[in-house]
Amino acid sequence: MGNQLRKHIEEVVALSDDEYTFVLSHFSKEAFGKNDFLIQKRESVNHCYYVISGLLKLVYDDADGKKHITSFAMENWWESDFAAFFTQTEAQMSLQCIEETHVLSISLNNYNKLAANFPKMEYFFLKKSNAGHIASQRRILSFLTSSAKERYEQLLEQYPVLFQRVPKMLLASYLGVSRETLSRLSH
Amino acid sequence: MGNQLRKHIEEVVALSDDEYTFVLSHFSKEAFGKNDFLIQKRESVNHCYYVISGLLKLVYDDADGKKHITSFAMENWWESDFAAFFTQTEAQMSLQCIEETHVLSISLNNYNKLAANFPKMEYFFLKKSNAGHIASQRRILSFLTSSAKERYEQLLEQYPVLFQRVPKMLLASYLGVSRETLSRLSH
Repeated sequence: MGNQLRKHIEEVVALSDDEYTFVLSHFSKEAFGKNDFLIQKRESVNHCYYVISGLLKLVYDDADGKKHITSFAMENWWESDFAAFFTQTEAQMSLQCIEETHVLSISLNNYNKLAANFPKMEYFFLKKSNAGHIASQRRILSFLTSSAKERYEQLLEQYPVLFQRVPKMLLASYLGVSRETLSRLSH
Repeated sequence: MGNQLRKHIEEVVALSDDEYTFVLSHFSKEAFGKNDFLIQKRESVNHCYYVISGLLKLVYDDADGKKHITSFAMENWWESDFAAFFTQTEAQMSLQCIEETHVLSISLNNYNKLAANFPKMEYFFLKKSNAGHIASQRRILSFLTSSAKERYEQLLEQYPVLFQRVPKMLLASYLGVSRETLSRLSH
């Protein structure tokens, strides 16, 4: 567990022991129970989270009180309400545990300090941000071009583990279909 | 026109004259006519584009040959098939001019060199990438939570100029609705 973030960063840039100690000093370790909130809607968003273990859902409540799942986050994923985090505005979404979850959290201040003082991490953050942007573009395309059935099959192919760990109702919300439609798709 | 990119970068970081000359040396100026392609589907994607003037559409053709507009790009926007550009894989989308368009293009090699050798530009690229990621997240949310009518109204509010410059058929494709539905919405 002590090395997990290091391995994750070293997929992009190599770090010496001292450099990793320096990087890690910008993060705090936190543990959350099932159903705990890391981010609450309308509150300020002070941290971005790197998931060590567990599973989270990023949820948007629309004007009618209906809940929509923007994304799931599990081991080695980075999650936050990024708009609120980077622009320091109030959360439009909530981030809640589906399972007991361990994270490393970083404040915007520490994120900016790390990026400004340590070019390797600025490079790492740039790579991660570009990858996140690419993943979002793919999801936009899937809404434009794919039927609910195709979106279901893409998700099953990309993240089969979600189907073991996430209740059907939440998968339906992520796919933008009703639970009944999902049941039909999964048979 | 010579100063447009500088003003755009200086919204994020200040540059000296020498620094701007250095930055600009990594870009090439290019002009394209209406309907010209900057990126063709299945070809390699060698550049990312900063739009000086004009208007572009990023288009995905699905398996049935139906065209979907992933995004529009106009003055001061950055556009490419980012997945193909950053991972150096073949284009899944095409990038085509709706109007005569002038751009500054940068290769991945120059993008990486500029980010590696000049921390101010690495910071600028990180800010842009995070902003792009945030914009994509908003679009995903709009597909999950908004009706076609609401998406139409959001677009009208955010980018009224698109309604003067973009044919109705392309707006419908961007919104993921039929042209008939769009006609109904716009009355």
